[in-house]
Amino acid sequence: MTPLSLSGVFAPVLTPVDEDLNIDLPLYIEFCRWLLKTGCHGLVLFGTNSEATSFSTAERMAALEAVLDAGIPAEKIVVGNGTAAISDGVDLARHALAHGCYRVMTLPPFYYPKVSDEGLFRAFAYMADRVGDPNLEMYFYHIPQVSGIGLSAELLDRLASEYPGVAAGVKDSSGDPENLRRFQQVAAAHPGFSVFCGTESLLLANLRGGGAGCISGMANVIPDQIRALYENWRAVGAEAHQEQLNWLRNAALGTGFNAISAAKALTAARTSAAGWVRVRPPLVALTPAQQQTLHAAVAAAEPVLA
Amino acid sequence: MTPLSLSGVFAPVLTPVDEDLNIDLPLYIEFCRWLLKTGCHGLVLFGTNSEATSFSTAERMAALEAVLDAGIPAEKIVVGNGTAAISDGVDLARHALAHGCYRVMTLPPFYYPKVSDEGLFRAFAYMADRVGDPNLEMYFYHIPQVSGIGLSAELLDRLASEYPGVAAGVKDSSGDPENLRRFQQVAAAHPGFSVFCGTESLLLANLRGGGAGCISGMANVIPDQIRALYENWRAVGAEAHQEQLNWLRNAALGTGFNAISAAKALTAARTSAAGWVRVRPPLVALTPAQQQTLHAAVAAAEPVLA
Repeated sequence: MTPLSLSGVFAPVLTPVDEDLNIDLPLYIEFCRWLLKTGCHGLVLFGTNSEATSFSTAERMAALEAVLDAGIPAEKIVVGNGTAAISDGVDLARHALAHGCYRVMTLPPFYYPKVSDEGLFRAFAYMADRVGDPNLEMYFYHIPQVSGIGLSAELLDRLASEYPGVAAGVKDSSGDPENLRRFQQVAAAHPGFSVFCGTESLLLANLRGGGAGCISGMANVIPDQIRALYENWRAVGAEAHQEQLNWLRNAALGTGFNAISAAKALTAARTSAAGWVRVRPPLVALTPAQQQTLHAAVAAAEPVLA
Repeated sequence: MTPLSLSGVFAPVLTPVDEDLNIDLPLYIEFCRWLLKTGCHGLVLFGTNSEATSFSTAERMAALEAVLDAGIPAEKIVVGNGTAAISDGVDLARHALAHGCYRVMTLPPFYYPKVSDEGLFRAFAYMADRVGDPNLEMYFYHIPQVSGIGLSAELLDRLASEYPGVAAGVKDSSGDPENLRRFQQVAAAHPGFSVFCGTESLLLANLRGGGAGCISGMANVIPDQIRALYENWRAVGAEAHQEQLNWLRNAALGTGFNAISAAKALTAARTSAAGWVRVRPPLVALTPAQQQTLHAAVAAAEPVLA
């Protein structure tokens, strides 16, 4: 059996910013270390929860370099290279490879709506061809409710056929179990192709269907609890375990607050670093009153763990 | 009466690319000269029709410098600085100002959907504050059917109130006459604030309502005809003139082809430079058969001008 190109529990790492809204590198590095220590197999730097597209390519490159300079191993890192311009995506991928990170998570170009599968194929092919490094692994990023641009199973199948090894996997953040099953079928036809779900609430379903794990915003908050299900998914009572794991998502999203702002507010509370609540516009930080509402909702829902 | 900050007919300049999909600078400069000679008061470099967001900030800066180096006057240029990351928008605006171009056209950050007016205000305010140059003029860009993010009249009013002079105008590409009227009301409350429509089919309505002109993709193809209506909008028969002007839009969009790919194909035909048909992914160039269909539709619709 061909091993999956990548598997496990990953956090799309939240990006702390200072008062000037520049990336707070010391806080960022400390957080990356905590995530790896607390349960994550690896880190996705600059996914949607990281506010990736709110930072310039230069800012993203500098942050990656700081994390590597701090001693966090390159093999633990997937670099989000999602941008509206394919040339920026190439630059970010080349930079990652030059620094020993050969895995990238790639959004489709997301400005123009209603683009064709042919156009998306050409966009991803341009990136793969321009980078031109056989070590590159691209994990395509399906999050249509945010990016506006979905990836079809047919497109993924074509990419995996024409770029074997380079087209290494997909992250499905649609939250749609039917779509996850379609992507798992693509993976079944291309051994080694890794399917990640974008919500830990589908982790069990994904692992049972041959998927690779999850890259979930909630892994920024409860990496240990998500890791525990990942380790025990074959155990008796896994369904109940999955059900219990959903408590934070249900509580946090039940408030109606932006999920990224909420995850940052929870991190601020955990670390007692108030600056963690900040976000870059166009997102808006939770107000103190909203933070209180969030913390109350989470406290009420938190299970008593044995 | 306070003069408008800017007025006239502008083309969001199409961006030609070579076989490697890099910007074809000689063709670009030649096209900019043709637009100014043929009817445009000025040029918007890097709007939606320019595939702005498909190019990196470095590519956009290099293209602006090439155009200026070729002798095209800075005062004829509005620089599109729309990006998903507000830090990129700041960098592009600073670069423009450093090269004598003090007018920018600014998209809202367009990755995250359903952002609040407060978040958009903070994004635009960040850009204005960081650039920190009183010469800056920002023209906000409302094109919700593409960017996914609309600008409300209330937001524009707040920007014009808190950043007088810097918040200099808006481009309304919604194509909605009701929305255009709302923006004209904002302008009436802030003398000098310029309202451009994004379709030449609303040029007469916009000028009659106190608007400043249009920034229209079709100005890449028929700048002379749009300019003629601009010059004659007070004349008897202006309604008929407007009606006649819509022929190209109706014919080109009637084919169902992507409007940008179509405008490039028409430019290829006019200039006999076949490379003009190329677009950057995720857009897809018209095939030879599609080009033939387009040219036939346009030829059939073209009015016999006196």
